[in-house]
Amino acid sequence: MEAVRSATRTPVSVLGATGYTGVELLRILAHHPAVELVHLSSEQYRGRLASEVYPFLSGIVDETLGAPEPDAAAAGELIFLALPHGAAASLARDLLRRGRRVIDLSPDFRLRDAAVHTRWYGDHGAPELLSEAVYGVPELYRDRLRRARLVANPGCYPTAALLGLAPLARAGLLSAPVVIVFVPHLLPVSRGILTTMYVRVPGGEPPLDSLFEQAYSREPFIVLRGAGPPPELREVRGTNRCAIGWRWDEATQHAIVVTAIDNLGKGAAGQAVQCLNVLLGLPETTGLEAPALVP
Amino acid sequence: MEAVRSATRTPVSVLGATGYTGVELLRILAHHPAVELVHLSSEQYRGRLASEVYPFLSGIVDETLGAPEPDAAAAGELIFLALPHGAAASLARDLLRRGRRVIDLSPDFRLRDAAVHTRWYGDHGAPELLSEAVYGVPELYRDRLRRARLVANPGCYPTAALLGLAPLARAGLLSAPVVIVFVPHLLPVSRGILTTMYVRVPGGEPPLDSLFEQAYSREPFIVLRGAGPPPELREVRGTNRCAIGWRWDEATQHAIVVTAIDNLGKGAAGQAVQCLNVLLGLPETTGLEAPALVP
Amino acid sequence: MEAVRSATRTPVSVLGATGYTGVELLRILAHHPAVELVHLSSEQYRGRLASEVYPFLSGIVDETLGAPEPDAAAAGELIFLALPHGAAASLARDLLRRGRRVIDLSPDFRLRDAAVHTRWYGDHGAPELLSEAVYGVPELYRDRLRRARLVANPGCYPTAALLGLAPLARAGLLSAPVVIVFVPHLLPVSRGILTTMYVRVPGGEPPLDSLFEQAYSREPFIVLRGAGPPPELREVRGTNRCAIGWRWDEATQHAIVVTAIDNLGKGAAGQAVQCLNVLLGLPETTGLEAPALVP
Amino acid sequence: MEAVRSATRTPVSVLGATGYTGVELLRILAHHPAVELVHLSSEQYRGRLASEVYPFLSGIVDETLGAPEPDAAAAGELIFLALPHGAAASLARDLLRRGRRVIDLSPDFRLRDAAVHTRWYGDHGAPELLSEAVYGVPELYRDRLRRARLVANPGCYPTAALLGLAPLARAGLLSAPVVIVFVPHLLPVSRGILTTMYVRVPGGEPPLDSLFEQAYSREPFIVLRGAGPPPELREVRGTNRCAIGWRWDEATQHAIVVTAIDNLGKGAAGQAVQCLNVLLGLPETTGLEAPALVP
Repeated sequence: MEAVRSATRTPVSVLGATGYTGVELLRILAHHPAVELVHLSSEQYRGRLASEVYPFLSGIVDETLGAPEPDAAAAGELIFLALPHGAAASLARDLLRRGRRVIDLSPDFRLRDAAVHTRWYGDHGAPELLSEAVYGVPELYRDRLRRARLVANPGCYPTAALLGLAPLARAGLLSAPVVIVFVPHLLPVSRGILTTMYVRVPGGEPPLDSLFEQAYSREPFIVLRGAGPPPELREVRGTNRCAIGWRWDEATQHAIVVTAIDNLGKGAAGQAVQCLNVLLGLPETTGLEAPALVP
Repeated sequence: MEAVRSATRTPVSVLGATGYTGVELLRILAHHPAVELVHLSSEQYRGRLASEVYPFLSGIVDETLGAPEPDAAAAGELIFLALPHGAAASLARDLLRRGRRVIDLSPDFRLRDAAVHTRWYGDHGAPELLSEAVYGVPELYRDRLRRARLVANPGCYPTAALLGLAPLARAGLLSAPVVIVFVPHLLPVSRGILTTMYVRVPGGEPPLDSLFEQAYSREPFIVLRGAGPPPELREVRGTNRCAIGWRWDEATQHAIVVTAIDNLGKGAAGQAVQCLNVLLGLPETTGLEAPALVP
Repeated sequence: MEAVRSATRTPVSVLGATGYTGVELLRILAHHPAVELVHLSSEQYRGRLASEVYPFLSGIVDETLGAPEPDAAAAGELIFLALPHGAAASLARDLLRRGRRVIDLSPDFRLRDAAVHTRWYGDHGAPELLSEAVYGVPELYRDRLRRARLVANPGCYPTAALLGLAPLARAGLLSAPVVIVFVPHLLPVSRGILTTMYVRVPGGEPPLDSLFEQAYSREPFIVLRGAGPPPELREVRGTNRCAIGWRWDEATQHAIVVTAIDNLGKGAAGQAVQCLNVLLGLPETTGLEAPALVP
Repeated sequence: MEAVRSATRTPVSVLGATGYTGVELLRILAHHPAVELVHLSSEQYRGRLASEVYPFLSGIVDETLGAPEPDAAAAGELIFLALPHGAAASLARDLLRRGRRVIDLSPDFRLRDAAVHTRWYGDHGAPELLSEAVYGVPELYRDRLRRARLVANPGCYPTAALLGLAPLARAGLLSAPVVIVFVPHLLPVSRGILTTMYVRVPGGEPPLDSLFEQAYSREPFIVLRGAGPPPELREVRGTNRCAIGWRWDEATQHAIVVTAIDNLGKGAAGQAVQCLNVLLGLPETTGLEAPALVP
């Protein structure tokens, strides 16, 4: 962080900067060439230095952590909310009224129907904004994101599943209504989600290669494996990438799709920064170029 | 290993003692109270001490590694073959002729049909023995194993799948022919296989709890989780256990079964020692009681 | 655990059974052939099953966790105290009065001088017992341990250092007063302490090989490496072993000693069970034979 | 890599691009804003794509691997040699004659005395260059590096030790001759070297804080901890940083210094890229800004 604000950098705030997702935002934004961190908040560590709480940030993010208050947060033109659900809604409303743009990483704006939101999370603090929020997956909603004031970032599981299934859905291969069988497996790894999807396609083998290539061949963060080396967690660890493999299983008439993402990267903070790049009209890879840390 | 053979211990040989599976056999057998290691072989390290090749075996298995030859191997009444495929067939024939019993951990005796074996692995060295070999899963073939001269131990993937699917198969819930979609995922863990099976059951929800309880409630190595805490790799690491979870997915009319095993334990050497216990008429948990190493 | 108490098994209690050290005691004692767990306590999880708190103990330790009270604890003839410091002193006094024997894994009885104890930990709850407690390192105090009523188990750091330095101290090579430079290094490993000791020996090269061999050649848990393969954490992980390497550095006139132990094994619960074996007159390796879990 | 060479980027070659160090060079250089990879070589994988050998490099380094020959390598103005010892010397001579600059990561140019080199490594292929090579530690030899044609990069152990000891040496606290006790410890971690140095200082406590601050307070890659949180491997993993802690031990009259580096980063490829930045007159942090990957 620099003492004097650069003319060419967009001031950015991060509320909830010391949680898992918040720290990953700091890790990425600290060296993003087009943004400047101007306000960081932490309920738990208020008043301490970010680099005191996380020594690996020494010399990288040394700013003092403040309170998650709109007055201070509004120093940013764009504000990331990495807060628990329920805490983002009214803060977002306040910040939008001040002319700021908000990227929310909580569940607060993910559901478009207030009644459904209420059933799962309780009453919503700013229901009038639900219809305006744009779902933060650039590969699917890039055009709407360019002009968005409010971005609702998906969680890591939906990101992993959506990116694998979208090409099939566009081709009409997912019969309505889609039913999801969700079987999470807890593994002793520090980063990474591997998702496998089995899609029964009654009409016979679809042109999977061309469906995925049409959808993603120009996407900088999607790595298409097809029948090549299977997606592995280590190739996406520390990145904003999503590696996708697929094959057709003739015996069962199923398309099998495997995706690998870093849950903190493309599953959270990385994708949020990709959205920031879209909002600011920057190349989407800005600040997100680092290859995976292998080994 | 003791210099003087105990009257009550069965002499046992391990051929291929320095491969992954062989070392795990040594690790388990070294303190098995009813066996005595009398001959170990290693093509690669012949003439060296086992504990020189693997220092963690110092003071535990200090014997010199010999050649994989039937004369020396026949010092054991029971011989484990942990050799590459193709190497076991003729050795097994020779040892059976000498009145020995053999537990083979290679693929050589897993397929009953010599023609099928030839298609996958090439000509078989002792095809007349294929029909005699008993598949080494005590939970499924305990009675036949008691009198077996030749045991064909399954690999880790089939073990993981069979134990999860057998209760459904017995209830007639797997429609013939069963088609398997096999999607291995490479994970950065040193031990452990997590297997998920999706079985479509057209007739509605089957009594999964009672099917699994009937099949396994008296099995010492099967941990039934049902809808409880999901099977995790760390609870089976270093053990001969198989943890099984299941649930019914009403929307898709699928039974979902998850199994967790240690690929070197219940998936290989542990199960082979469990078979030895069956062959020798010992309690099946003999030498296999150690809990998982947590953390 | 068995419902009916075996005639040949010593009843044992573990107070503080769900902490790191307590769980490791359960892991080891569950299959110790000469003891029976009769009372387990946990302040935090009182009333729940041990195997509910730690699913890997399913079918291994299924008993209900009770309160850390002397009446219940006295069901054991020997009681392990795996409690925070300060909680053990008065409990130990009460249990000794009832004729029980106590192995304490807290710091409460490690210091012989009540004044020193008070300076570090505050007032002592049973100072009259300090002089009676025997330090729980069988390799150094085996004779006194045989008749001990109260054992004060050392922590993992002193164990690692003592076992490496004792042979040099016995030979008079540690000049008085000994000064210790303690430099802990935090490493991302789940078990294991590697300790390096540099001892300046002014008089020239001492006969290190014979000093270590004299001290430890008959010790079942000490693995002497000398100038052989260096001690590694993986060879002691999950065991009660201490691997020791050493060499003489002519240029600096230093003896360099490296020890590797599992902090939960020889550094805590394993050594406490070794002490139990000494107290009960059993072979010291009873229940502690399992080799390291490699890989 | 870009098809059209940018006017502002320096063309760079990497010989030995698929070894541990070479791959780390690719990982860093792929997004270095001031260089362009123009030739990569691999004896083993010649003719294949770098991203085929290492899938995590897909879309990042897709170039074909060639032979380690000077004609092709000379396409770079600056050439990294990440080759086994003995292979660099004559290649370096040839490339220097063509007016190129060379950063050698092998031991070939580390020793200034040809006779000493011969004793350890055999005859040297270009002994006349030994006196010209500059040791590649910018913190110590920055001025000479700026004009260097040939850089001899140190290995990871010397780097870790030198950075910890240099401030004491400059203050005359290391009595001549310095004797080094080298005790490597093998740990199950994928990256990272933790080095502890004990320096006896006869004259009493030196001003350690000010010595280290004088030496390093303006160094962008040195993190000074002093008596603060101790250096940890995870804070340097994936970076070019060296974290240094120190304290004075009054009882033994020793200064104790601990350094943490990533053996592939500051211990090899990261430091080599830092040297490149010095040679090219760039800010030294160029391309090396990425924070550690935590968690």
